[in-house]
Amino acid sequence: MYTDSIYGTAPLIASYLKNHSFKGSVYIIGSSGISTELTAVGISSMGVGPDPIPSNEFLEQVAGLEFDPDVKAVVVGFDPYFDYAKLLRAASYLQSPDVLFIASNSDERFPMSTSPIVVPGTGSILASVKVASAREPIILGKPTTHIFEAIQHDHNIDPKRTLMIGDNVKTDILMGKNCGLATMLVLTGVTTEQELHDFENSSNPTEQYLVPDYYMPSIGDLMPLLQKSVNS
Amino acid sequence: MYTDSIYGTAPLIASYLKNHSFKGSVYIIGSSGISTELTAVGISSMGVGPDPIPSNEFLEQVAGLEFDPDVKAVVVGFDPYFDYAKLLRAASYLQSPDVLFIASNSDERFPMSTSPIVVPGTGSILASVKVASAREPIILGKPTTHIFEAIQHDHNIDPKRTLMIGDNVKTDILMGKNCGLATMLVLTGVTTEQELHDFENSSNPTEQYLVPDYYMPSIGDLMPLLQKSVNS
Repeated sequence: MYTDSIYGTAPLIASYLKNHSFKGSVYIIGSSGISTELTAVGISSMGVGPDPIPSNEFLEQVAGLEFDPDVKAVVVGFDPYFDYAKLLRAASYLQSPDVLFIASNSDERFPMSTSPIVVPGTGSILASVKVASAREPIILGKPTTHIFEAIQHDHNIDPKRTLMIGDNVKTDILMGKNCGLATMLVLTGVTTEQELHDFENSSNPTEQYLVPDYYMPSIGDLMPLLQKSVNS
Repeated sequence: MYTDSIYGTAPLIASYLKNHSFKGSVYIIGSSGISTELTAVGISSMGVGPDPIPSNEFLEQVAGLEFDPDVKAVVVGFDPYFDYAKLLRAASYLQSPDVLFIASNSDERFPMSTSPIVVPGTGSILASVKVASAREPIILGKPTTHIFEAIQHDHNIDPKRTLMIGDNVKTDILMGKNCGLATMLVLTGVTTEQELHDFENSSNPTEQYLVPDYYMPSIGDLMPLLQKSVNS
């Protein structure tokens, strides 16, 4: 496993903007991972880390806020520093229809099923920016095809000879299908075997489309088959 | 005009909880107006003002967070200190189905039509709490009937002899109709005369229901009629 073989959403956002010949600066609700990747492709950004409005006299200060006219995109990722000031800045930038609105994913929360704590995900942060701006973002994560296109671009991969393995039919398998890949579900994650069979037996074409080509109890069950294939 | 004749959402929230014999403490995303009104009816609360998670090592700290088992309601109002930590706390409390979820209103933004700045309203904050918690709040503001019921309770008002005046058919006029009041639209605000006529001519019963009994260019036009009525 090489780290340059792992595709995260931060480089995906950078490559999306670069591939679309983006000119301008980016207002980020998100982590330094995003700003680092943007810098690497020559795009300036702001907003990472705490970004409060500097007074308790909030609404009086708002009128004096300055906005950078060079901002031509708002990017929303996971941001534990997300706050009202960032929401206001993002929504204000998004008032201009030529400012792009991009999100890394729309996951509501992190999976922590046994915890008394709900850890809200990017999708929860995104919800407030959507409502405040009255706009819909371009979501670069699964199930859209952007991330596979980036991998394909860098590695010249043939979709017909590629297997998408995932644990969630609605994101992983759907993305594989959207990209023309073979698909395999493993049952160690989000989608259960019962749900899989329900989709197989569904008369709804949207649910039928989510049925993978293959499924296995776990990804470890693939190893004997690979070894057999290599040895034969 | 007497200030005790003005009904805001903060006393409305307090009276709602009191009338429902609420026992427990309240986690507030909102202003000190709400906590003050809750204190006045003997309900304890927490969360008002900055309420950050005390470290940059965010996800490591989260596991150590403590939650007050006495919290039996989460209230969401307008809060310029709204941040990720408050979102996480609210969503975590709301995991328990016996914790009430109450919001003052669902307005997306403050009306500042000529400004380059979007000032997100309670509805934008509420959107993220809804997504993170996967729950729907009880909204106490218009067009639900709660605020009129509170006024009626305090002042023994006869709905049949009461006129609801407002500038928005979807909140003000709808609330008036929901409470059995006579309704009058003024054209100095949200709903335009054209929209009013569109609703009058609509074949959609939901839109027809929004048509007020009366309308006037502005509330000032009511004065000569009132004087005439008093003099006759």
